[in-house]
Amino acid sequence: MASRSIERTVRTLTEDARTASGELCGAPEARITKALKTMASLLDTHRATIKSENGKDLRAGRRNGLSDAILDRLTLDDKTIASMITGLKEVASLKSPIGGDFDHRVRPNGLKIHKTRVPIGVVGIIYESRPNVTVDAAAICIKSQNAVILRGGKEAFNSNMALAELFADALEAAGLPPRAVQLVPTTDRTAIDVLLRQSDTVDLIIPRGGEGLIRTVVEKSLIPVIKHYKGVCHVYVSRYADMKKALPIVVNAKVQRPGVCNAMETLLIDKNLPHADQQALVQALRREGVALFGDSHVRRLAKGIAKATEEDWRAEYLDLRLAVRAVSGLDQAIEHINTYGSHHTDAIVSRSRGEQQKFLLRVDSSSVMINTSTRFSDGGQYGMGCEIGISTDKLHARGPMGVDDLTTYKWVVTGRGQIRT
Amino acid sequence: MASRSIERTVRTLTEDARTASGELCGAPEARITKALKTMASLLDTHRATIKSENGKDLRAGRRNGLSDAILDRLTLDDKTIASMITGLKEVASLKSPIGGDFDHRVRPNGLKIHKTRVPIGVVGIIYESRPNVTVDAAAICIKSQNAVILRGGKEAFNSNMALAELFADALEAAGLPPRAVQLVPTTDRTAIDVLLRQSDTVDLIIPRGGEGLIRTVVEKSLIPVIKHYKGVCHVYVSRYADMKKALPIVVNAKVQRPGVCNAMETLLIDKNLPHADQQALVQALRREGVALFGDSHVRRLAKGIAKATEEDWRAEYLDLRLAVRAVSGLDQAIEHINTYGSHHTDAIVSRSRGEQQKFLLRVDSSSVMINTSTRFSDGGQYGMGCEIGISTDKLHARGPMGVDDLTTYKWVVTGRGQIRT
Repeated sequence: MASRSIERTVRTLTEDARTASGELCGAPEARITKALKTMASLLDTHRATIKSENGKDLRAGRRNGLSDAILDRLTLDDKTIASMITGLKEVASLKSPIGGDFDHRVRPNGLKIHKTRVPIGVVGIIYESRPNVTVDAAAICIKSQNAVILRGGKEAFNSNMALAELFADALEAAGLPPRAVQLVPTTDRTAIDVLLRQSDTVDLIIPRGGEGLIRTVVEKSLIPVIKHYKGVCHVYVSRYADMKKALPIVVNAKVQRPGVCNAMETLLIDKNLPHADQQALVQALRREGVALFGDSHVRRLAKGIAKATEEDWRAEYLDLRLAVRAVSGLDQAIEHINTYGSHHTDAIVSRSRGEQQKFLLRVDSSSVMINTSTRFSDGGQYGMGCEIGISTDKLHARGPMGVDDLTTYKWVVTGRGQIRT
Repeated sequence: MASRSIERTVRTLTEDARTASGELCGAPEARITKALKTMASLLDTHRATIKSENGKDLRAGRRNGLSDAILDRLTLDDKTIASMITGLKEVASLKSPIGGDFDHRVRPNGLKIHKTRVPIGVVGIIYESRPNVTVDAAAICIKSQNAVILRGGKEAFNSNMALAELFADALEAAGLPPRAVQLVPTTDRTAIDVLLRQSDTVDLIIPRGGEGLIRTVVEKSLIPVIKHYKGVCHVYVSRYADMKKALPIVVNAKVQRPGVCNAMETLLIDKNLPHADQQALVQALRREGVALFGDSHVRRLAKGIAKATEEDWRAEYLDLRLAVRAVSGLDQAIEHINTYGSHHTDAIVSRSRGEQQKFLLRVDSSSVMINTSTRFSDGGQYGMGCEIGISTDKLHARGPMGVDDLTTYKWVVTGRGQIRT
């Protein structure tokens, strides 16, 4: 597509989304539920079409030499379709986050003032590879009465188009505007640049993917962005740790699923922990096949630990590698986390209430944890039913974001003719 | 200052602010109160210095041909000093927005999860002319335990420096980090560009001033920005209006203080309102000296009404001019407001409950009002004690922003050694 034509296409898309958002706001809850449940049945009845469109993407991916890991994430089979169907039904059953009133006040002049919860409006999601994000993200947006513009990875284009079209059909069948779910109908990168400038019609951008993608989005966007760049999560094992808890927590945080943002990337060990316990931590990780990068103190705990550099303290390995540092105590641990961390999720293992409280207060992260694994930092695990992403920003929503976090409020002021003097 | 030196100065400033923010977070409430009250006494005892520094700015302003209106806003006299002192005492007496816990949940695996309210961290305020903003904004930030970086207008540089230095003294006297309040020590515009790139150390930018300044900030910032571009506020007078309320509301919304963002800029009149009532609205405004720009229907209501163009529907006049449009009813009024408005504050005058509810639901603005004047859209009037700005954004805070809106939350997860399976 020529760049002027892309500009026109994306502008029309966002204007249609804005109109759809107006119609969606305040729609009867029964229609929202019907749309989500209809989408669940359409996935079931159209699985042949979905697999055939997905097949086109898989064949193109193989031709273009995509890795097995990426091809795996790209695949829509009966298992991934079943999981999308379950997700839709779960989101449909959640309580609506919209409406109600809160923060009531009556002013001396008799004005009645409150806030009411409303959708954000139009949300743009920019993501890579996995086509099931198309359905999950759209479901969360529709539940919270937001119109959504989806821009998926180019490898999944045919799969995403098929899923987005089914969603539009489901909306229409429920008497809701089909343009409330739209996929950007081109894989040209110019479309992203155009989208990020539509601040009149789009209210929020959520990028999901590698750090490079997210930095580009933040740099170019005139629209507010909620995101996390990366997850450099820490576990600090204090001299007051219960080692029967510390060992499984440390292993779980690194090993249970190393490729995700809430996996541990740096272990901080209190130098005052008994020497045998320090060694036990290092050995437990090595037994699981974790390659360690340590400072000089840590390297003396076992053989075969590589020397950590400044880059290791900032690294998001996303695999079975781990930076390990010995610290003089809680203060140094906190300073390390706030300096090198990514404000995502950090945990302390300690029996001391004083240490726990100081850690909670001082560590500047979206989730702080006591005596448990960083792997729990997740919308499902927090009981939110689903998540549209994790925010390390300070504004609006922090940590895992669910349907409640895709809402804002408006002030409602009710008078009897009062004027200002 | 050479541009490399400005870069270094601003970076140091923001790093010092980040450090101060860590020390401020969780400081005893008594110290916060002491700092604010000490600042109030310092303003009282140092009024000679303040006036003398302000005198430098006023003399330079006169030399540079600033208008009387700007020189007036620039002046710090006993009245403005008294008002800053009152403001400080009011903010000191507000309830702290920090701490506590909410959104409790216990998960099936026994994990206890809640949120606690924390400061945003480091806030940058970019503003024009009025030096009292220096004190008001710093007070709100300190009350909410945020460090603040102030960048005021160059015409007020000496006044702002004097006030910021007093604030640092007040913090020090209360045992708090003096670097929690800092003014950018140069009037060079490069400093703003550098500040807007410090996303590692600064969490939020609030620009206050003309639309041009705010658009530049949004375009250049890598840090989240909360703002309003302008206030194009509407009053819609429905066929069901009580004219005894409508007339004073319409006059008040335009005339009581036309130069501010919550003044009415467009009046929408229902064509189905009795003709005499339509004429009465137009005449009441003309009697107050308001110049009207109307569509063809409106121009037939009285003589001397100029023809409105498309630009008038989008205009923020900020003076005694007003656009007036006749609409076919509620739906067209809502469509006009959502198309041409600025999502700031819009009001309906109507006795119909159905119309009121539809207006509240459909008008996509930060404050929606029934039977009262848009001029009430203000932190003080909403009972927030003070405000740091008004947001027309959808994210984080919407409408008038007070101390509560300068906070965020963190998730706290407490376990007994749980690991993820």
